[in-house]
Amino acid sequence: MSKILRINTRTKEYSFEELGKYAGLGGRALTSRVVLNEVPATCHALSAANKLVIAGGILAGTTAANSGRSSVGAKSPLTGGIKESNVGGQFAHKLPRLGLQAIIFEDKPEADAPFVTVVVKKDTVEFLDAAELVGKGNYAAHDLLKAKFGEKVVTAIVGPAGEQSLMASTIQFSDPDGRPSRSAGRGGMGAVLGSKKIKAVVLDPDGKDAVVMADPEKFKVARKRWVDILMGHPVTSQGLPTYGTAILVNIINEAGALPTKNFRSGRFDGAAKISGEAMTETIKARKGQYKHGCHTGCVIQCSQVYNDKNGDFLTTGFEYETIWGFGANILVDNLDDIAMMDRTCDEAGMDTIEMANTIAMAMEAGVVAWGDGKGVIDLLRKVGTKDPLGRILGNGTVFTAQAFGVDRVPVVKKQALPAYDPRVVKGVGVTYCTTPMGADHTAGYAVCQNVLKVGGDVPSHGKAGQVEVSKNLQVATAAVDSLGLCLFVAFAVLDTPDALGVVADLVSSYTGKPYSVDDIVNLGANCLKDELAFNVAAGFTTKDDQLPDFFKNEKLPPHDLAWDFTAEEMQASKV
Amino acid sequence: MSKILRINTRTKEYSFEELGKYAGLGGRALTSRVVLNEVPATCHALSAANKLVIAGGILAGTTAANSGRSSVGAKSPLTGGIKESNVGGQFAHKLPRLGLQAIIFEDKPEADAPFVTVVVKKDTVEFLDAAELVGKGNYAAHDLLKAKFGEKVVTAIVGPAGEQSLMASTIQFSDPDGRPSRSAGRGGMGAVLGSKKIKAVVLDPDGKDAVVMADPEKFKVARKRWVDILMGHPVTSQGLPTYGTAILVNIINEAGALPTKNFRSGRFDGAAKISGEAMTETIKARKGQYKHGCHTGCVIQCSQVYNDKNGDFLTTGFEYETIWGFGANILVDNLDDIAMMDRTCDEAGMDTIEMANTIAMAMEAGVVAWGDGKGVIDLLRKVGTKDPLGRILGNGTVFTAQAFGVDRVPVVKKQALPAYDPRVVKGVGVTYCTTPMGADHTAGYAVCQNVLKVGGDVPSHGKAGQVEVSKNLQVATAAVDSLGLCLFVAFAVLDTPDALGVVADLVSSYTGKPYSVDDIVNLGANCLKDELAFNVAAGFTTKDDQLPDFFKNEKLPPHDLAWDFTAEEMQASKV
Repeated sequence: MSKILRINTRTKEYSFEELGKYAGLGGRALTSRVVLNEVPATCHALSAANKLVIAGGILAGTTAANSGRSSVGAKSPLTGGIKESNVGGQFAHKLPRLGLQAIIFEDKPEADAPFVTVVVKKDTVEFLDAAELVGKGNYAAHDLLKAKFGEKVVTAIVGPAGEQSLMASTIQFSDPDGRPSRSAGRGGMGAVLGSKKIKAVVLDPDGKDAVVMADPEKFKVARKRWVDILMGHPVTSQGLPTYGTAILVNIINEAGALPTKNFRSGRFDGAAKISGEAMTETIKARKGQYKHGCHTGCVIQCSQVYNDKNGDFLTTGFEYETIWGFGANILVDNLDDIAMMDRTCDEAGMDTIEMANTIAMAMEAGVVAWGDGKGVIDLLRKVGTKDPLGRILGNGTVFTAQAFGVDRVPVVKKQALPAYDPRVVKGVGVTYCTTPMGADHTAGYAVCQNVLKVGGDVPSHGKAGQVEVSKNLQVATAAVDSLGLCLFVAFAVLDTPDALGVVADLVSSYTGKPYSVDDIVNLGANCLKDELAFNVAAGFTTKDDQLPDFFKNEKLPPHDLAWDFTAEEMQASKV
Repeated sequence: MSKILRINTRTKEYSFEELGKYAGLGGRALTSRVVLNEVPATCHALSAANKLVIAGGILAGTTAANSGRSSVGAKSPLTGGIKESNVGGQFAHKLPRLGLQAIIFEDKPEADAPFVTVVVKKDTVEFLDAAELVGKGNYAAHDLLKAKFGEKVVTAIVGPAGEQSLMASTIQFSDPDGRPSRSAGRGGMGAVLGSKKIKAVVLDPDGKDAVVMADPEKFKVARKRWVDILMGHPVTSQGLPTYGTAILVNIINEAGALPTKNFRSGRFDGAAKISGEAMTETIKARKGQYKHGCHTGCVIQCSQVYNDKNGDFLTTGFEYETIWGFGANILVDNLDDIAMMDRTCDEAGMDTIEMANTIAMAMEAGVVAWGDGKGVIDLLRKVGTKDPLGRILGNGTVFTAQAFGVDRVPVVKKQALPAYDPRVVKGVGVTYCTTPMGADHTAGYAVCQNVLKVGGDVPSHGKAGQVEVSKNLQVATAAVDSLGLCLFVAFAVLDTPDALGVVADLVSSYTGKPYSVDDIVNLGANCLKDELAFNVAAGFTTKDDQLPDFFKNEKLPPHDLAWDFTAEEMQASKV
């Protein structure tokens, strides 16, 4: 059975423990349960009392398609609430091969203690001085780790932003191509690990334990059907592989829900120039790559490799959210500039959604002009340096707004809003407000039912049905995140009657214990209950379940819709 | 009867209104009632929805001794809760001579609108371009206003920190000597007025309405007895006039409660060098002034004029809190350096308590060395400039701590702690936790009963009686702040049986309406109820009524005491 590795970052003591009371949990359900049980809810998120948990999902390490997501959990320095940040890359695929379900980082060293690289092996942990990595961009840092541990080494790295414990900082996870391109982006998880003076986590390349199926034959059957389900749905078999998530640029723009100029309009004149279609065309012309996976076992292949004008690698994992945020929301229509912003964020370890909104705040304040892509790149490059402006920006949207006296701040629970205007896509607005995570589209992606008409049809402009759809999606998402599945499987699952049964079969044939569709639902619901309980203990109330006033007071063109839910009306979206 | 002047800072419309539903209120009771009634509790504090209220107390403008305090109220950008910041100076003395009880600033102009100076006359308001004042230190700005409006002009000015809407920014009120030395310090009131693009408020020097007593004879008798009470108590007649509030340095150090090096010890080796005794000696040697009042009608005279080594004016209103914060708490024992820090804060318009703790954060992070007074002065001078480091520091303790990844952050409700370690002076610790204001000693100054043994004896190290004493003081203080009396009258009132009756007589003989001691108590209690109601509506819970964990986990030398109240145990200190 898999174990939990506990590492005391101050004493450098560690222990490999049985799952015990955490048995049966994985991914988000595990990280959130540990945070609820073991982290005092009112502690300072950068203090020794906080813990950072990295967990593979319940299906991690198996050959089930798209089961390689990792969950990173802690009390968030950004929101002050619980956080699970979900990420691709190779980590969750490798972790079970060391016999591990999760790693928990506890306590913290003195502020002037040196950063270390933690090398996790099957029975031991090594702490290496990380001096040569400190201050380096993540690509260079990962290259140094590859030089030491081999090309295929699996890492999770805290970039210069996380070293400084900045609230927009990520942990970057290495991808199948050996790049640190996958961001555990939201909520400042890099700040928490950075505060514990962990620069990098390296999974021993020699860890090669077989992942044993309790019922290999049953698993094989389920696994095949699972692939068929994913490959049988047009979104997961065609749209996402061909255009990446950026396929949404034109769709959401057409829906009038593409937040433009800090949420002042739902349409962007330059949308076509930064669309998924334009991106794929550019990638083809420059001999980059589309249909590319972020982790071993991915069949959806929504990622891509985006090259610069010279055909040299520029960035990968170039998502719709990033393109929206550094594009429409700040009036930039140059995809190369946006790609460079994405790369710059990956280098310092910054959440692109948080930083895109942060830049919008800087634009509101006149620090940089609307649409000045080159100026934005210069600003982003300050984060992680000694420049105090970098410390402001790297702490995110609310922080930067306050530094410059800006009051138009699109956040819920202090986390910046993603790429769907809630006035038009009301279901995702409900999710922004009531998920324990702070504004987060992935926590209950009602864009499916509101716009894409996947998994049902709930008209996006009205209030009817939004609370229910958000609740159902929040539960489903928590389950998906706990299983370690990629969220995009949901497109297919929602439209395929036997899909959840197949997932239950995958679990039961792997673990050898009965697992039902109800168990999946309970997994998600219990995870959410844990998260909501933590937030209540941290002092959150219904007052925190709301959008900023300007969404209520300003109608969004072209549909001229305002936000019209009260916090009370949305409470039923909580489990 | 007095009126309320409402000014729309966007449209420049204004109206002089009857008190109406606010009749009978003044000072803090008035500002808090207006904020509760008229400001949406969850609004952004820098948005158009917030309002800033400046009110004289109920006794403002009368010849009652020490009745010239002003209240400044708004939703605080620092705490996110309601705020009343209490201040001396000439404003409340002058306001009734224009027929006004209060001024309410509403709405806000566009971010790029120019700053204006508001000239308040009896029946009109003028808006003057403030370009020549913008960016100037408050002393220079006030000099320009004196040049235009006369030496005795009464002003309230937003300094460069407030212009930038920084959260530690004050509004500086002019004193009887024509200096902008009096700070409405706590909670970022300067940021709110600055966000409304008000640079200065000037009270028309020609405003000379008589303040009419309903019963002049009765008032005269009460007024005389009132002076006798104040002059009959050793604290208000001897201690405070001779040594200023800095008399507390040695007293609190002796008690082991002088927070030293960011609350790591209760004793400071350099205390004697920065004591009230040392200050008065220095003042005498340099021909400065002690026994000096901050507003017309003050008989306590705790202020002073502190000159530099050349005998030139350096600062005034040089308080114990400032001396503690820029002294013991950051290990500076040079009184001249501390005086320059005080002056620097008055120039940019910064709360010295917030900034002292902010500097401690910078020292924790190694931005400046512990005890480096000259380095601190250089840092403070950055606030209000274009230097991004100034924007970090000027936003206060929590903000600066986050910018530099510091987790030892002494705040309650995000407002920095004052000069009494709550582990040793437990009664004031209860006040820090449960006052609606955030950590604030003046809100319920249990130092009286805990240490000074004025108004009773509640042993400071134990828990017994602390909740009760804090509650009683919170009510009394809210009443004092609403009457417009200086808080220091409390020393005498607490020890004088007939004092409250005399205060009631002052009110009734002024207004011509019956006023009892019960009315005074209700005035305070209702004010607190308003404030608590606002905070609940803003999302505050019991979780916000606590000290940071390190006060519980670290025992303070020399008495080796930890903080041991739970938030629940302190709830009874709320009305």
